[in-house]
Amino acid sequence: MNMVRPSSARRFVSPQDRLLWTVCDSESMHSVLVAAVAEFAVKGFHGATTRDIARRASLSPAALYQHYATKEELLYTIAELTHQTVLSRMETAAVLSNRSGDRLCAVVAAMATFHAEVSVLTRIANNELHCLKRGHQDDVLSLRQQILHVIRKCLADGSSDGSFNVDRLNMMTNAILSMAIGVNRWFAADGQLSAEEVGLYYGRLALTMAIRGLE
Amino acid sequence: MNMVRPSSARRFVSPQDRLLWTVCDSESMHSVLVAAVAEFAVKGFHGATTRDIARRASLSPAALYQHYATKEELLYTIAELTHQTVLSRMETAAVLSNRSGDRLCAVVAAMATFHAEVSVLTRIANNELHCLKRGHQDDVLSLRQQILHVIRKCLADGSSDGSFNVDRLNMMTNAILSMAIGVNRWFAADGQLSAEEVGLYYGRLALTMAIRGLE
Repeated sequence: MNMVRPSSARRFVSPQDRLLWTVCDSESMHSVLVAAVAEFAVKGFHGATTRDIARRASLSPAALYQHYATKEELLYTIAELTHQTVLSRMETAAVLSNRSGDRLCAVVAAMATFHAEVSVLTRIANNELHCLKRGHQDDVLSLRQQILHVIRKCLADGSSDGSFNVDRLNMMTNAILSMAIGVNRWFAADGQLSAEEVGLYYGRLALTMAIRGLE
Repeated sequence: MNMVRPSSARRFVSPQDRLLWTVCDSESMHSVLVAAVAEFAVKGFHGATTRDIARRASLSPAALYQHYATKEELLYTIAELTHQTVLSRMETAAVLSNRSGDRLCAVVAAMATFHAEVSVLTRIANNELHCLKRGHQDDVLSLRQQILHVIRKCLADGSSDGSFNVDRLNMMTNAILSMAIGVNRWFAADGQLSAEEVGLYYGRLALTMAIRGLE
């Protein structure tokens, strides 16, 4: 897909709008995605109609179909972009840190920060996954496995080198994943803490679990 | 609502079926709820139709309407029962334990165990909440606040008596809630660990966070 960003002067858009831009090559394509996210968030995938999405994007249904042939393709674009982006940020964080502890903290912080920054996108990507076609669902589930693997490997590495005290690797991996994903339930962009501060807190909390193990 | 349990010989039904029985006064009412859960789980609230629910329950749509006037009432029954039950189990666990540490561990274990036992119910209750009517949504959100308050109070009590080392009470409360709720994403009843074992693990992990704080 062509990744040309619109060169408009909209510099202060939300992190969500900015992220959606990365898979658009026109303003109208972008407004379709923004509208789809808003409709899915309020009505769920099945409750949202392409007609409502088109209306919200100030386009005719015919113009919408030039960008996305089906509603399912819209959801797939959102879910794939969301999962790919968080995976890529976590992988980057993993590479930048040398020690096991720093790496786990950085990876979890990246994941939690992302779920705070684009909370609506991640909620849709998670909650509406069952609405995707089989092949598309498989694509997203595969990305999810890779996300899980990044955390799992951090924990396993720290256990091997003696930094961590991990009893039951899979359970702890799932605990950390749930904690980071769960940020999308309650984070408020206008709250006391920034997305990065929340991310760092959860990164450090994951480190506590990994180092201290079970009480 | 009349809480008479059907006196059938079905003693080995799943925890989910058993829980649904507690708000039914007939076998047919129970089969409607079981069918609704199955349809909501696969298709989401908006994707499921009362016709399909009736068919799955081996009832006519007219017979279904004798029990529930609308699909939304079905979802409300499921969401309210689920939230009320977990709240009541957590409150019971809190009362039974004297020391702050034991109490936190028991409360989180009760919550995580419940999300393992009836994972499908809790996923529906959480993911489809936006599909409820305003008043019903408020009822469930109020139960959720009470659930959050049980954890929050455990952490606050342990901080006051010097047992815990909690930096940012709300953040840690949310982390523990997310961890316990997240069990419904991955728990498999036929896996290596029982729901109670998973619950206890997460109870102890919450205790680690509370006692050790941030690394």
